[in-house]
Parts: sequence; C-alpha cells; structure tokens
Amino acid sequence: MPEKRTLPLWKTWSHITKLDPDKRISEADLKAVVESGTDAVMISGTQNITDENVAQLISSLTNYKIPKILEPATPEAVQYEAVDFVFVPLVLNAGDLEWVVGKHLEWIKNEKSKNHAAIKWEKVVPEAYIVLNPESAVARVTKSKTELTPEEVVAYAEYAEKYLRLPIVYLEYSGAYGDPNLVRRVSEALCGEASLFYGGGIDSKERAGEMKKYADVVVVGNVVYSGMEMFLATVL
Amino acid sequence: MPEKRTLPLWKTWSHITKLDPDKRISEADLKAVVESGTDAVMISGTQNITDENVAQLISSLTNYKIPKILEPATPEAVQYEAVDFVFVPLVLNAGDLEWVVGKHLEWIKNEKSKNHAAIKWEKVVPEAYIVLNPESAVARVTKSKTELTPEEVVAYAEYAEKYLRLPIVYLEYSGAYGDPNLVRRVSEALCGEASLFYGGGIDSKERAGEMKKYADVVVVGNVVYSGMEMFLATVL
Repeated sequence: MPEKRTLPLWKTWSHITKLDPDKRISEADLKAVVESGTDAVMISGTQNITDENVAQLISSLTNYKIPKILEPATPEAVQYEAVDFVFVPLVLNAGDLEWVVGKHLEWIKNEKSKNHAAIKWEKVVPEAYIVLNPESAVARVTKSKTELTPEEVVAYAEYAEKYLRLPIVYLEYSGAYGDPNLVRRVSEALCGEASLFYGGGIDSKERAGEMKKYADVVVVGNVVYSGMEMFLATVL
Repeated sequence: MPEKRTLPLWKTWSHITKLDPDKRISEADLKAVVESGTDAVMISGTQNITDENVAQLISSLTNYKIPKILEPATPEAVQYEAVDFVFVPLVLNAGDLEWVVGKHLEWIKNEKSKNHAAIKWEKVVPEAYIVLNPESAVARVTKSKTELTPEEVVAYAEYAEKYLRLPIVYLEYSGAYGDPNLVRRVSEALCGEASLFYGGGIDSKERAGEMKKYADVVVVGNVVYSGMEMFLATVL
C-alpha cells in the first residue's frame, strides 16, 4: 500500500546533503556532515554509480540515525535496506520519454521478475525534476530542454504539483548557482502541497539563505568534497 | 488548492457513459441515458471536437443532476462551467512526450495567459491511459505503443498507481472489446488506491458484466449511438 501522504517527513526538512557514491569521503567528514544539522543525507550521483559504491556509502552511514534517502541514478538496482526513502526522479523537461516513464517501466518490470526483490513502494517517493543547467551531466544524459522561459518553468512546476499532485518539485541546477528570481516565481506559483527543492551551487551561508527564502528545501552536494567549512556554513 | 484525495466521488461509480460531441443524440435518448442508472456522463471525443459542439452537448445536459465529466480531447479550451469534473488524460504508452507532458504544458501556459480563464484545479483529475487498440483513433493520434506484453501493461499500471499515485488507471480499447484476462491481471496488480477504468466494445450485459468483474468502472460509449436497448443492457 502506498504510504499516506499526510505529514511526509520531508515537509519538516530545510536542508539535505547529497553524497556521491563515486567520491571518497573520510569518516571524520562523514561524521561532520551527519552532525552538521542537515536534515537528511541523500545518496545520489549521475556518473560511475555502481551497486558496490552505493552499498559502501550506505554501509558507512549505518550507525547514524539521520534519515537516509537513496536517489538512484536510474531506477534500477535499487537497494531498499538501510535507507528510509527511495526518491525516484522523473525529469519533466527531459528530451525523450526515457526519463519520464521509460526507465521506470524497466525498473518495475525487472524488479517483478526477480522473486527476491519486490519494490518497497512505501519507501518510494517520486520527485519531479526540472533540470535547468545545460552544462550539467544530468542535463546531457536526459537531453533536457533547458532553454525555458520563466512561464514554462512555472508551468512545469504546476503540472507536477496541481495536475499530477506529486509531492516534490525539484529545481536542479546541478553544479551551477541558479536564478533566485526564478525560484521565487516557482515558489509563488505553487500552492504549498508540493515541497519545492532547490539544488545547485550552494557553497555559502549567503547562497543557502537566499535560496531558502523561496525553496522549502535546499540540497547541498559538491561543497562537501571541496570545503567542509563552507559546507557547514550552508546549514542555517 | 488541490482537492483532498479522500473519498473521491468516482470511487462509488461502476458505469460511465461517454457522449461524443461530434455525434447527434436526440433529447429522448439523452434522457434515457441519464435515467438509465449510469453513474456519470463523460463528454469526450477524439475527432472533430470543437468549442461549439462541446458547449452544445454540455448545454443539453444542464437540467440533469447526473455528475458531468468533461474529458478534453486535448487539454486546451477546457470549459469548467456546468461540469463537475475535468478528467485530463495522460497517455502512458504514447509514442512521444506530447501526450504525457507536452500538451498539458501548453494548456497550463495558455490558460495562465488568459486573465479570465484560470484553471479550476479542484475539478481537474488526471487519468493514466494505457491505449491498447492499435486501430483506434486515439492510438494513431498519440502514436501509442500497443504491442505490449501483459507484464508491460501491468508495469504501466503500477507506474501510475504506485509510483505516481494517480487516482485513475484507464485501460482503453476504444472501439474494440479487450482481453478480460489482461484486465484481470492489471486488477490483481493494483492495490486499490487507483480506480481501474475499462473502456472499449461494451455493447451487452454480458460484456459489461465480464469487465466489471475486474474493472472498478466500465465506460460505455459507441453503443449509445448504435442501439439504445443494447446500451441500457450494459447498465447492471
């Protein structure tokens, strides 16, 4: 049975830390992340993601009580054990059907064909991505149409929240700092049913604060690997 | 604000009558439909649908209290007045993005650009179509991939109900009578959160009864125009 949508845990969050299974992190840094005040850690990456490096990162988090989210690069080989949520993206502005329904269909079919690995739907949460940085790996892989007017971005967000009634709308600038005015406009168009996530280029208290004015949740990733002090400053 | 999903009215329905704005129906036949015991009428068609013939059909239903659903051929020029619901399909097995997200985006953008016609989201309900008759107009228009294994049809249905958590999964054979075994398999795979709609080729008590064993709602259309006695027999 799908989980009831009343009071989803992420409605109480404002900061998520994305950890990349393809990047090394020391035990000390991992401890610093978990104890930073971030609300959850998300195991997520786009490139060189393997069952092994995902399992290793999840394993290194086992002893921490912080909510753990797995965000599979493609919804295949999902590991449900030891994570609280599996956030499965669909990319609204993808260039073809693969990233909206195709990959998901393969995932569902494949999991059903393996006796031992039924999908734990109660952990699965759909995320409606709008990919906005054309230089990012995710934009290239999904052939995302990033040349969008603000009206088009708002329309995608409304499609996700008001038509499909998805719980999460995710503005993804992955690797670049986005346009706060655009995040504000999307925020104003949403009616509060969906949580608005923002990700990309957050590497300071100022940027985190600016995006937090409009987004419900900021997702912070790369700076974990480039400067732990800067990362810690993003946790308000 | 999106309507809460508790107790949607269609959960109590078992029979919907589809009326085509492009086809003529006498006042007497319309009265017979409304008084037949069908739970709702759906104004819906694929070809030669105009603002005018939709408005005329809706107008002819004004004095009847029966629940009225508008199912726009494309989600443009939606008329919200005088209908209880606007069921807006997305076609899961469409051949391109247009029928999953493209048309919807145009609709949302266009409605926003007209001051007088904001979308009445509280009336809008998404329907997850799986189009299965390759000869049908809807299959041709949407370039639907109808060559599907039962496992693929089940996976589409699970994608809709368990991943997206859409309220309606619609197996559409439009113009042909479908495979009851396939409807049964989909019914068994769903967990009861989504309502399973079946449409296509229902022109007798036997066929209506057979599909009603598995589908929550049968949608009956063409037979209204070819034989009112046969139509009346489909209302169990």
